[in-house]
Amino acid sequence: MWIQKEIRLPAYPRGFHLISREILHQITEIQTLKVGLLNLLLKHTSASLTINENADPSVRTDFEAYFNRAVAENEPYYRHIDEGSDDMPAHLKASILGPDLNIPITNGALNLGIWQGIYLCEHRNHGGSRTLVITVQGE
Amino acid sequence: MWIQKEIRLPAYPRGFHLISREILHQITEIQTLKVGLLNLLLKHTSASLTINENADPSVRTDFEAYFNRAVAENEPYYRHIDEGSDDMPAHLKASILGPDLNIPITNGALNLGIWQGIYLCEHRNHGGSRTLVITVQGE
Amino acid sequence: MWIQKEIRLPAYPRGFHLISREILHQITEIQTLKVGLLNLLLKHTSASLTINENADPSVRTDFEAYFNRAVAENEPYYRHIDEGSDDMPAHLKASILGPDLNIPITNGALNLGIWQGIYLCEHRNHGGSRTLVITVQGE
Repeated sequence: MWIQKEIRLPAYPRGFHLISREILHQITEIQTLKVGLLNLLLKHTSASLTINENADPSVRTDFEAYFNRAVAENEPYYRHIDEGSDDMPAHLKASILGPDLNIPITNGALNLGIWQGIYLCEHRNHGGSRTLVITVQGE
Repeated sequence: MWIQKEIRLPAYPRGFHLISREILHQITEIQTLKVGLLNLLLKHTSASLTINENADPSVRTDFEAYFNRAVAENEPYYRHIDEGSDDMPAHLKASILGPDLNIPITNGALNLGIWQGIYLCEHRNHGGSRTLVITVQGE
Repeated sequence: MWIQKEIRLPAYPRGFHLISREILHQITEIQTLKVGLLNLLLKHTSASLTINENADPSVRTDFEAYFNRAVAENEPYYRHIDEGSDDMPAHLKASILGPDLNIPITNGALNLGIWQGIYLCEHRNHGGSRTLVITVQGE
């Protein structure tokens, strides 16, 4: 059995945001699956997906602070600068974190750790709404 | 055909560790598959999975040395500090390296390069036993 | 339905290279699939795969410049140095970016964003030809 849908996420401010609930809301069909896999693919090159702690919001604040230092704006060696100082760092962060996730489904639910949440990583100042492809396969 | 199991890895010290053999030991059923995919998902936010060189142990030592410099402890801007100085860096490293891997199966075996091994990346000082979901699909 | 092939990419110079067209050329069978997934696995530990901007070549130039700074050669603490100064950084970059990608297939085509291209990330000075496993599943 395959399920696939393409959804638009609401526009988030620059930073790291929990979107587990929005995704689960879109794939209630997985409740009938004994075993399967969920693939998520974000159709953008300046935002990304990751899995990390879903409890303390300071983790997400620290993610934003860390990545802004690890991938700085306005590096003198950047050549790709026409779309704003946040653009090239956003591309780099997007590839470091990656656009896709693959999560097992077990007995009708995502089989994530109790502390694991799905993050939308918005690397641009005004990224706007982002499009996500959700693909589920299972039986 | 689907195979899925959840296993507990033994507790590893902080660092990078080859776990290919332990995983293969759990999925002997793949020997009957002509084609397929293996998904691995580590159910934690302060440890991760990656694929890298399986021969010279100094590669794994250098991984630990590099990531400790690239993601330092005790950064004055960290807010998430209540669980120890190794905690927030562990979350960051876990997302940089990622919790999931997807590996093709060909003619009854994982189709990895000859030098590729699966690493458990233990980012905490005392992470304890880690839980891994193994999902195989194929025919 | 499963499709799987192992291909050899031409040798690319060190840097980031668009290979979407070469991959699509190998999987024309996906045109018959309504829904599915493509898995790519690069069988190497000093080159990697990522998805990023497919338009302005300066993005790829900046990727090379950034990663050469973020993962420097000749760090005095490296122990794995026998295979050249570009070797250990190549291993680290390969794990930061990752060897595998998983991309949805929708109505006979890869469902990527309009600006998303598949990059071969060649981290060695003389990496030579690289081997890629392409696995497609769908219906």
